[in-house]
Amino acid sequence: MTPQSEDFSAWYNELVFKAELVDRGPVRGTMVIRPYGYRLWELLQSDLDGRIKETGHQNAYFPLLIPQSYLQREAEHVEGFSPELAVVTYAGGKELEEPLVVRPTSETVIGEFMAKWISSHRDLPMLLNQWANVVRWELRPRMFLRTTEFLWQEGHTAHADEADAMRETMLALQEIYARSVRELAAMPVVEGEKTASERFAGAVRTFTIEGMMRDGRALQAGTSHYLGTNFAKAFSIQYAGEDGGLTLAHTTSWGMSTRMIGGVIMTHGDDKGLVLPPRLAPYQVVIVPIGRGEQAAEVTAAAAALAQRLAGAGIRTHVDDRPQLSPGFKFNDWELRGVPVRLELGPRDLAGGTALMSTRTGQGKSPVSLDTAPGRLGAELSAIQDLLLQRATSFRDSRTATVDTWGEFAEAVQAGWALALHCGQPACEDDIKAATSATPRCIPADGPAAEGRCVRCQQKSAYGKRLIFGRSY
Amino acid sequence: MTPQSEDFSAWYNELVFKAELVDRGPVRGTMVIRPYGYRLWELLQSDLDGRIKETGHQNAYFPLLIPQSYLQREAEHVEGFSPELAVVTYAGGKELEEPLVVRPTSETVIGEFMAKWISSHRDLPMLLNQWANVVRWELRPRMFLRTTEFLWQEGHTAHADEADAMRETMLALQEIYARSVRELAAMPVVEGEKTASERFAGAVRTFTIEGMMRDGRALQAGTSHYLGTNFAKAFSIQYAGEDGGLTLAHTTSWGMSTRMIGGVIMTHGDDKGLVLPPRLAPYQVVIVPIGRGEQAAEVTAAAAALAQRLAGAGIRTHVDDRPQLSPGFKFNDWELRGVPVRLELGPRDLAGGTALMSTRTGQGKSPVSLDTAPGRLGAELSAIQDLLLQRATSFRDSRTATVDTWGEFAEAVQAGWALALHCGQPACEDDIKAATSATPRCIPADGPAAEGRCVRCQQKSAYGKRLIFGRSY
Repeated sequence: MTPQSEDFSAWYNELVFKAELVDRGPVRGTMVIRPYGYRLWELLQSDLDGRIKETGHQNAYFPLLIPQSYLQREAEHVEGFSPELAVVTYAGGKELEEPLVVRPTSETVIGEFMAKWISSHRDLPMLLNQWANVVRWELRPRMFLRTTEFLWQEGHTAHADEADAMRETMLALQEIYARSVRELAAMPVVEGEKTASERFAGAVRTFTIEGMMRDGRALQAGTSHYLGTNFAKAFSIQYAGEDGGLTLAHTTSWGMSTRMIGGVIMTHGDDKGLVLPPRLAPYQVVIVPIGRGEQAAEVTAAAAALAQRLAGAGIRTHVDDRPQLSPGFKFNDWELRGVPVRLELGPRDLAGGTALMSTRTGQGKSPVSLDTAPGRLGAELSAIQDLLLQRATSFRDSRTATVDTWGEFAEAVQAGWALALHCGQPACEDDIKAATSATPRCIPADGPAAEGRCVRCQQKSAYGKRLIFGRSY
Repeated sequence: MTPQSEDFSAWYNELVFKAELVDRGPVRGTMVIRPYGYRLWELLQSDLDGRIKETGHQNAYFPLLIPQSYLQREAEHVEGFSPELAVVTYAGGKELEEPLVVRPTSETVIGEFMAKWISSHRDLPMLLNQWANVVRWELRPRMFLRTTEFLWQEGHTAHADEADAMRETMLALQEIYARSVRELAAMPVVEGEKTASERFAGAVRTFTIEGMMRDGRALQAGTSHYLGTNFAKAFSIQYAGEDGGLTLAHTTSWGMSTRMIGGVIMTHGDDKGLVLPPRLAPYQVVIVPIGRGEQAAEVTAAAAALAQRLAGAGIRTHVDDRPQLSPGFKFNDWELRGVPVRLELGPRDLAGGTALMSTRTGQGKSPVSLDTAPGRLGAELSAIQDLLLQRATSFRDSRTATVDTWGEFAEAVQAGWALALHCGQPACEDDIKAATSATPRCIPADGPAAEGRCVRCQQKSAYGKRLIFGRSY
């Protein structure tokens, strides 16, 4: 495999296929998510779904095919999405009277139904979520990161006023996304607001969580939008207050997608392959039984018994008993596939009541007593989970520079992120992008107050704090 | 609501909307699955997914958009699905060179990848499953039963030979579908094989589970197909055996969809509304606190405390504390929505340490001690689950007649099912359908051996046993 340091992009593109996470779909830009990759998605999905429900949201399902006219009702929205649409013009053996758009996102169709379901202030807040596939035609596809079809959840909520809608926008960002991503994916994301030019098409404010990948680039891992009354106006989402008067609702939307799998790969992976955080790993422990002839049966039976005990302790365990492959091949295979803990079990280990443990993040091998293996491995997995978050945090911090001059800025965004003051002018953002490929990733929520001159144009700084600039995907 | 006896179809169409299970989508034949309906789907999905994984299958995800040429590779398949296809002809701002079909089912695209992933006998069996949406243009749409877009799982497997593929076909039918449907949905389905004219387009053999609805019609609730080497030939799914020679794989596919929700409604519902089997009910117990003024707070707090204890015992519980609605309105509402157990909690009940229980399947109200409520309600829910299966079984048996004359046949299929001998000729099936609307639902797996003359044409009977005939959806 190409080393990261030589060509990060090539490393990524080779790894996703070699680790059997995906395959290229037959239609340009589409992907097949293979079982190993899909299991990662299911584990993330299950955690996110739990958080979404615990915070009072209900799942529902809205149609895939949307009348083209719906998109046209919100001017910015249609302008933003038009170039990416896939359109059904023919169905049931006939040309359609009105073309149908394959949903690129569902604000419009959900807006239509919220308008129908909401009549009184008692119907608010309306807190919906949908797990779905969406299609956005991609000119520069990249597995997981930008695919023509992807899987995601999209939260859609309606509220009585701006304050309640903003609380929801931040809840989705902080309590649902940032916590899930940190706790499961061990990604130390930064929460913040997008500048105007990076907003979702149709949003009043867009918030993001941004993670730093191992090439120093930023990945937008989830977004949450305060849509104001833009969609409420377009679809007449209004409610009668206590006094009977009609008021427009304030809506939000927020999404996290299969792109997150790309984020996990690029946050933790190394030249040997994937490094999976235990809480997202399809297999947390892989046992490789080693033994030939008569000993094989004994060792394989012991491996199965150990696997059962580990599974009983809630550890996702797999026994690799493929007879045609050598132990060495298997070790490399599971290293490539990022399994946190590997156990070798040979006749001599078995006689000594131990297995030989290697961790994906450590060096060398150490014996583990079979008697106490479940507890010991549980602790080991937990330590690896913590280590990955710490390691990624240190990496991010070491590649983030506070800069005040253009020279420092240009250098910082080659290696990672620059914390810089900016004037807030879209033209100046464009200028920076043209010169360095870097864009404002966010106005970090927890950034300290700072004022001064724009790092590029020297005009007065905006936002009252430094922005994070970086190259992205 | 229209009574079932007056117009079953009208009863159904009114109920699905009134119970807030669905709404009509903006595109003809599509549906919006509302939270209450979607929760039913999630509960079914979670059970099915567990069974699918326990039997060794892995989930994966294949693209929504399929090149039109893929479908054309299997002649019967394309012929069967062509009239129902939705076609994307325009994407990313341009006319496409090759039109893309929105998947009506995924045998073709999955076949393409199985061919790529399978090379040796060691790669078999390959056991995949996908949770997805599919689109089939519907001319006679009906919520849940026939919608232009529906949600389902589709299992796709490849095997070394017919015997192994047939074992899989029956495992999906019997161990996954029939058990899940009986245990969760309390539907006493019959397992059997379809006659040639009712087979899936491209299958060698199609098996089905059929349930009887309360109007006596049959609902096909899940199907499992042995595809022989039809798709293996079309997509070159082949493997090298021990001796190195190449052999075509034998494949299967099997699906169950949101149609099942329609089956639950029509198997158990009555003139008052839904009757949900406890294991599929979004809320198994609804508590209605009753009290005005000062007492309201005390009663509502007690209801919340009780709900928490019930939830702790694994009972899905909801407190209906909507202040603007009367208890009577709430009782009717939850009856309409099919909640198995309702508890009323008023100041006098509370003082006596009890709540007043009504079950959706029982008569009258009886007090339940608050102290022992979790255990008592658990037992009650379990009894309701059993009762529903028994009741549906008795109903089905009472509407199933073993018939030997055409007169008996014609009468039987007006009320329910006819067990009859048939010659096995498609033309005779067509003739029966034209005369009575009834079709052969299946050759029941457990039907006793029987031979004689065809109930319609008097020619020698085929299949070696009686078929189930009935009208369907």
